[in-house]
Amino acid sequence: MDFRVIDIKQQVYEGVADDAQTLRKQLYSADTFMLNLMSSPGAGKTSTLVKTIDALKRKFRIGVMEADIDSDLDARIISNTGVGVVQLHTGGKCHLNANMTHRGLIALGANKLDLVMLENVGNLICPAEFDTGATRNAMILSVPEGDDKPLKYPLMFAICDVLLINKIDAMQCFDFDIGQCTKRAKKLNPNIKVIPVSAKTGEGMDEWIKWLRCEIRRFRSKK
Amino acid sequence: MDFRVIDIKQQVYEGVADDAQTLRKQLYSADTFMLNLMSSPGAGKTSTLVKTIDALKRKFRIGVMEADIDSDLDARIISNTGVGVVQLHTGGKCHLNANMTHRGLIALGANKLDLVMLENVGNLICPAEFDTGATRNAMILSVPEGDDKPLKYPLMFAICDVLLINKIDAMQCFDFDIGQCTKRAKKLNPNIKVIPVSAKTGEGMDEWIKWLRCEIRRFRSKK
Repeated sequence: MDFRVIDIKQQVYEGVADDAQTLRKQLYSADTFMLNLMSSPGAGKTSTLVKTIDALKRKFRIGVMEADIDSDLDARIISNTGVGVVQLHTGGKCHLNANMTHRGLIALGANKLDLVMLENVGNLICPAEFDTGATRNAMILSVPEGDDKPLKYPLMFAICDVLLINKIDAMQCFDFDIGQCTKRAKKLNPNIKVIPVSAKTGEGMDEWIKWLRCEIRRFRSKK
Repeated sequence: MDFRVIDIKQQVYEGVADDAQTLRKQLYSADTFMLNLMSSPGAGKTSTLVKTIDALKRKFRIGVMEADIDSDLDARIISNTGVGVVQLHTGGKCHLNANMTHRGLIALGANKLDLVMLENVGNLICPAEFDTGATRNAMILSVPEGDDKPLKYPLMFAICDVLLINKIDAMQCFDFDIGQCTKRAKKLNPNIKVIPVSAKTGEGMDEWIKWLRCEIRRFRSKK
């Protein structure tokens, strides 16, 4: 399967909040749930997306926006799942905002989709500062990164609705305390849902899929 | 041991290149070698610094600048090694430039030091775009992040003089090809020195220390 590549270098820092609200309303009208997935480089966004698509592609019409600074590696992996993909080339920029996302949604034909997932740029800082217009924000923290990350990148944990603690299959190699990490995340954001998973072995993915389906159902039932 | 905290929110994107050159000249005049250490969150910058300080603190007068968005966790860890530390609070900003670094060097009293190490913000994107004025740029890529990272964050690999591949003690948990990663990094930057290490077990640290000492010697012999 092929995918389109879009270059989005402009409009950074302009009219961000307003556009995010407009975009959110448009997504609401179109009945399209948009998930913004964020993490550090290499925490497992793409592999989590592949597992999520496999679990949901028979239930929902899905599309994916892959934000990447330069390469199309992840877009190629996602396109193998059979869902629609657009590649958003940020041209070195470290985040996406609603303007950029908007262009991607148009290219993806999002108004005919039930679920759009945005794989944001691998970065725990800048993407947290920009509202993409997404219905829900999700983040992945992987076990090798350490359980102190909520203390060091607080904004990211504060703005996310769900935290996936990934690579729990590698737990024996690292000194990571899930309880401590959860406590630190919840101190910043009492409502955050924390789900330990392994995108590699599939452990915990059922709970993640259940959470996502529940959020999509809730989004639709509000109409 | 105590450390100072400096807030540096302003002067972003202003006069960056010029100031970096000026700063580099000042460091050269003062005989102070400055290392800029960059990586993703949780790749092992602080633990690598601790091991480096332990190996070199009897040879050199060392100081450390800890750039952190918000917390002082790393500065506290470094201050336990007994060397001077200043904490640079970036106030949410995702990188350091030469202006910010300059303020840190003054606070650290860098003109009386042989070696200053800057632990940059945990981010593979933005710090690569700003010249801090450092004598050498070093980066850490940790095994769990994956050997595809040179393809996805090319600028960081292109601007670094040395790449430490950290967490090789956890190699059995991950599918990471050191040869492939080295090849990808060298394609972007043929002169990059690649050193596999484990800041946890100490493996490979001798080669890293040897490289660093050699660079410091070279820096001084050019005078």
